[in-house]
Amino acid sequence: MMNSIEVYAPYLGTMNAKLNIIHPTLLLDTWKCRRNIDRMCAKMQHNGIQFRPHFKTHQSREIGRWFRDYGVDKITVSSLRMALYFADDGWDDITVAFPVNILEKDIINALAGRITLNLLAEDPEVINQLDTMLQHEVNLFLKIDTGTHRTGIDPVDLMSIDRCIEAIRHSRYLRWKGFLAHAGHTYRLRHRQPVIQNVYADSLVGLFALRDHYRVRHPDILISFGDTPGASMMEDLHGIDEMRPGNFVFYDTMQVQIGSCHPDEIAVAMICPVVATHLARNEVIIYGGGIHFAKDSIVLEDQQLSFGTMVVYADGMWVADNVIGNVRSLSQEHGIVQVSDAWIDKIRPGALVSILPVHSCMTAQCMGYYNDQEGRSIDHFAGSPYSRS
Amino acid sequence: MMNSIEVYAPYLGTMNAKLNIIHPTLLLDTWKCRRNIDRMCAKMQHNGIQFRPHFKTHQSREIGRWFRDYGVDKITVSSLRMALYFADDGWDDITVAFPVNILEKDIINALAGRITLNLLAEDPEVINQLDTMLQHEVNLFLKIDTGTHRTGIDPVDLMSIDRCIEAIRHSRYLRWKGFLAHAGHTYRLRHRQPVIQNVYADSLVGLFALRDHYRVRHPDILISFGDTPGASMMEDLHGIDEMRPGNFVFYDTMQVQIGSCHPDEIAVAMICPVVATHLARNEVIIYGGGIHFAKDSIVLEDQQLSFGTMVVYADGMWVADNVIGNVRSLSQEHGIVQVSDAWIDKIRPGALVSILPVHSCMTAQCMGYYNDQEGRSIDHFAGSPYSRS
Repeated sequence: MMNSIEVYAPYLGTMNAKLNIIHPTLLLDTWKCRRNIDRMCAKMQHNGIQFRPHFKTHQSREIGRWFRDYGVDKITVSSLRMALYFADDGWDDITVAFPVNILEKDIINALAGRITLNLLAEDPEVINQLDTMLQHEVNLFLKIDTGTHRTGIDPVDLMSIDRCIEAIRHSRYLRWKGFLAHAGHTYRLRHRQPVIQNVYADSLVGLFALRDHYRVRHPDILISFGDTPGASMMEDLHGIDEMRPGNFVFYDTMQVQIGSCHPDEIAVAMICPVVATHLARNEVIIYGGGIHFAKDSIVLEDQQLSFGTMVVYADGMWVADNVIGNVRSLSQEHGIVQVSDAWIDKIRPGALVSILPVHSCMTAQCMGYYNDQEGRSIDHFAGSPYSRS
Repeated sequence: MMNSIEVYAPYLGTMNAKLNIIHPTLLLDTWKCRRNIDRMCAKMQHNGIQFRPHFKTHQSREIGRWFRDYGVDKITVSSLRMALYFADDGWDDITVAFPVNILEKDIINALAGRITLNLLAEDPEVINQLDTMLQHEVNLFLKIDTGTHRTGIDPVDLMSIDRCIEAIRHSRYLRWKGFLAHAGHTYRLRHRQPVIQNVYADSLVGLFALRDHYRVRHPDILISFGDTPGASMMEDLHGIDEMRPGNFVFYDTMQVQIGSCHPDEIAVAMICPVVATHLARNEVIIYGGGIHFAKDSIVLEDQQLSFGTMVVYADGMWVADNVIGNVRSLSQEHGIVQVSDAWIDKIRPGALVSILPVHSCMTAQCMGYYNDQEGRSIDHFAGSPYSRS
């Protein structure tokens, strides 16, 4: 049997005519992406959970439409302008999973007049101010901090929660929907299922206690939860009403390290031209830098940083299991890739290589569009006028 | 005398009507920017150095035009598409300071047919391939690695240099311009002038030796050098033919730490809405994350990371010397700012705060446009269709 170098080396530098890639290009494997969507939709359905996928990862109207085949009609986004982008494509039930920014009152009213708009708050004074600005009804979740310590109310701080509920009760336009939390601390874990399970159990104990406490007087309140590690790895999601994972649509090497996915499930790769090689230090210089990848990194087992993983690429396809090297540093437009001995003399300037991103949400944001394997451009909010209005 | 809190606290949250800022906005202080341009142009003129400013920092046609008042007619960019963006605005002598990417041969020919195009190479095989593709004359610099170890030929590797010169000599369309180096390792220094001086002396010794060696047969070759720390801090730039600093146009907190500038010379700040506060941990949550700032950071004296420095902001102006806190972490849309005791209870959701960026080139790239203090939008290449073509 031939090894991967013998198989793929002859194709290095060959270019897929349909793609005609000449500069850093974020290639989307639509089949892998649809498979990821299919699996997550099935899992949510199987668990009887309302699925409200977070569209901040793909930020694409076209990819968003693929969810409609599964009956998904509620979505999550991370900004009001992103909500507008999707509302204008027909989505009519959107949660903006970000503490409400009262300065954007005009966008809030414009959206609330057209769609079911769900916002987040955690401060009674903000709730009061928001209500005075509103012209239409808005649903409000209280943001709970289940351990990430970014933002949100401590689940044991019933006094603050009561003050928020009171403010909502006295409002004209606000309707209380329940508690929303993001298990963002799962992203800091670099282990597999058992640890995630403990984090989930700890987070959910607090949320369920809150729901039990308040359901007596507010029987319809929901627990909205979710993150890609948990949604991917947890089998039993019992008790959660709604989940909002986003990253699963593409995954990335950070999620591989966390244990959420297999490398072959990663649905995007950056295809980059090689512009120089340094054989003496096993380094390849690619056209592809911080402006393309963003600068997220993971620490590998050898304690070195990786800003992306270079895998075999030939003729428009990448092979996720065949690792050639890792991106060791990124400047504005360059990347330095450290390549294994077996590959270093096979790679020459003018070749195309493929890099699996560390954090696909940020990489897609930097690029502002995708190319599919037919060479078609696929939209991204960041590349639209909505993001600069 | 009143302290800064007494002076500025009443204005917190007040909004400049002309600006009408409601989401993260990169504000450009045009006066500071023009002053930075003025100083650098004067310094280059005083030293008798050909000034070829790097436009990869601002990437703006409008800001680019401000250089014309000083007789600047040669520029540097970091990609061929960026060269096209500026060529279409009338710039006709452009260096693409990036190892030539032969896959972009069509753009190279399109540019070379219209303007004086200067490219970089470091590999005789690439030089041969490039020549076979060309339809017009192109100037070529040899990229020398003076210690950054990103890419380039070692200055003592005369065999490789000779092979490149031979390849150029046998070419049809290439003309050898000289040696180009980027003192990128000055960015790793966190000290002031004396250390930069040593780095410069070491880098230039090698470059000058090369020039002396090759000038016998090639009397017109140039040394093109430059970086913002050196161009800002070095008084004596004797012997350098051409300099290409870029960041000085805005500066940033990284340059303050290196010693290149005073905080008051930073010409851009991100104005962000506050969306939540956590008094118990002195933290303010801003609408402003990795997608706005990029994720560059510096290590402060307390050994903690800073992703940006929060300074006093009131009514459309920021006061660089009045530090309120530092951005301690960034997620996709949020930033967590740790704020001093004196300020934490003055800042409420709905207020606007200003953050000096760590790396202004990357921050401007993320945003894709600027606002000036009159509320006018100023162009950036990343926000143009050129960047996605």
